[in-house]
Amino acid sequence: MLFYILYSRIMAKKVTIKDLAKAAGVSVTTVSQILNGKGARFSQATQDRVHALKKQLNYVPDFNARNLILHSSKTVGVLVPNIGNPFFSSFVRGIQEVCRQKEYMPLVFSASHEVELERYYLSRLVERSVDGLIIASSSITAETIDEILKPNAIPYLLFDQNQTHDHEDRVSVDDYAGGQLAAAHLAQLGHRRIVMYMPTEPTENVQNRLAGFKAGLAAAGIAFDEEAIVKTTLSKRGGYEQTAAVLAHQPTAVFCANDELAIGLYRGLQERGVRVPADLSVVGFDDIDLAEYVTPQLTTVHQPINQLGKQAATLLFNRMTAKEQPLEQQLVKMPVHLVERQSTAKVSEDQ
Amino acid sequence: MLFYILYSRIMAKKVTIKDLAKAAGVSVTTVSQILNGKGARFSQATQDRVHALKKQLNYVPDFNARNLILHSSKTVGVLVPNIGNPFFSSFVRGIQEVCRQKEYMPLVFSASHEVELERYYLSRLVERSVDGLIIASSSITAETIDEILKPNAIPYLLFDQNQTHDHEDRVSVDDYAGGQLAAAHLAQLGHRRIVMYMPTEPTENVQNRLAGFKAGLAAAGIAFDEEAIVKTTLSKRGGYEQTAAVLAHQPTAVFCANDELAIGLYRGLQERGVRVPADLSVVGFDDIDLAEYVTPQLTTVHQPINQLGKQAATLLFNRMTAKEQPLEQQLVKMPVHLVERQSTAKVSEDQ
Repeated sequence: MLFYILYSRIMAKKVTIKDLAKAAGVSVTTVSQILNGKGARFSQATQDRVHALKKQLNYVPDFNARNLILHSSKTVGVLVPNIGNPFFSSFVRGIQEVCRQKEYMPLVFSASHEVELERYYLSRLVERSVDGLIIASSSITAETIDEILKPNAIPYLLFDQNQTHDHEDRVSVDDYAGGQLAAAHLAQLGHRRIVMYMPTEPTENVQNRLAGFKAGLAAAGIAFDEEAIVKTTLSKRGGYEQTAAVLAHQPTAVFCANDELAIGLYRGLQERGVRVPADLSVVGFDDIDLAEYVTPQLTTVHQPINQLGKQAATLLFNRMTAKEQPLEQQLVKMPVHLVERQSTAKVSEDQ
Repeated sequence: MLFYILYSRIMAKKVTIKDLAKAAGVSVTTVSQILNGKGARFSQATQDRVHALKKQLNYVPDFNARNLILHSSKTVGVLVPNIGNPFFSSFVRGIQEVCRQKEYMPLVFSASHEVELERYYLSRLVERSVDGLIIASSSITAETIDEILKPNAIPYLLFDQNQTHDHEDRVSVDDYAGGQLAAAHLAQLGHRRIVMYMPTEPTENVQNRLAGFKAGLAAAGIAFDEEAIVKTTLSKRGGYEQTAAVLAHQPTAVFCANDELAIGLYRGLQERGVRVPADLSVVGFDDIDLAEYVTPQLTTVHQPINQLGKQAATLLFNRMTAKEQPLEQQLVKMPVHLVERQSTAKVSEDQ
């Protein structure tokens, strides 16, 4: 019987401050004061007993009471378009590292590019008093931000976005320079017939890659054919599915808006017996870890992905702690560089 | 000035029920009753005004007040070893789908196989009154579960784990049958010198794959050489790094404990000019989406990954709603099948 009571007390529900007070033979207020470091007026024996029982019963303070008072949950919401893309899993790892130092919990949601799902997650996060948000979702709209975040004064930071507003904190990479680097590399290898492989609805950062790419070609005296932009879904499958459309331009090289597109294209090329780089040079963008594991290893524009995550979290924490005092708009643009691997080669006479 | 007041009220902090009451010219209690559907005793005009202002000010009720009363946060914690492995991103997608139907938020944490980080995340989730947990982390220990989850009576479910206890809800796949299928396939192609490529600290599910594999070979009259087990870190990099150790056995085929190992091995083989499958047949396990994108496409044991996530979430919700009434242990083992692609071939005389 005693066992049963103990069992039901301990197993059937979360240990509360009441359980702890009862076990210690003191009031709830006493327990609360002791656990909050304000127990000096109680005997050492009582303080020790409460601390020992806290450990023994594994009492965990209810965070919701604290949240309610402080309007803070010590959480940071992170919205990414697709956690299945290794780019975003690395990015999130960088955020996690900073959050752990700050003792915040990062709550990560992958919204699959669906506007409705993004609104759903954002609303639920606001309800739960999230302290700040990192939004790395390409489909977020200025409307969503104005409706859901602004009225609740949630600090947020944009990454890898469309230009929704002009005054937001923002972490980005130098996409334009990345496009230039890709162009210079291909031009130097003698390529002239080049396809740019793009997502159907290019976000601003992708548009910058294209603009930089065109500028880089122009600088090398190469006219870019606007017809030679092939669009598809931004995924491995998308990269695979429009292989024929890419090849229809009879290119000697392809610049892909990201590595996933390049990996999808590899598959389509392999099925058609088109050799990389002998028949076609391929350049990616991102430098996800897979770029080193595909055959041939992918030449790509490297983004400091983990650093981007850390930087995003750091700026957000700046903003969160600056709630009461003014803080200028924070803009960080990180550099990129080209990693030459085995998917690009000098154009040959056969091509 | 008026603008400033409005601005500071609306921008400087989350809109509270007090703000809403003030704007509507009624008491907090009135607002609370109207918003909770108990406002019949107020005039229609008042009710309409409160609802209109709620929308206009974008008032979001504080979830923490509700949590404190209900000891529930409408959240489910999900602990995975590595969200960067596409297996786990698909698994999480399955969980998300079920959670959304139930209007719960899945809180996903990737603990990088670190026991301390797992304990940290679990404790923080318990503090925040998470309603249930799906633990797909291979390094979780019975001790951690006993210390953190049991005393707080948090329903949880194990996936893909070491056998920590005997009585837990559990979702798994038929790993043993998967090992048998891989063995039968390689045996039928005439392979005899076969390496099993394993993680350094194999979890129970991986041990089952090995046991099934040995049984499958035995059934085909092939003696498995215990020396021919090569161990490495369970990642693409790990698969790459021990390539030489695999080749030292002069195998004609390799069975990899998961697809990531196989993809890492591909890279090591390619660097050494070892052709797949002409020189070496490779079989993976999982069937992550990448398996179709590597060259050659990977023959592998298919797990219904998205279904596993859905199933895990469904069983957890069963358990959560059964808190007050007994529910038998739930065990679901899902079937696997072999997907033959291009990485395996009949053994040749040259091998």
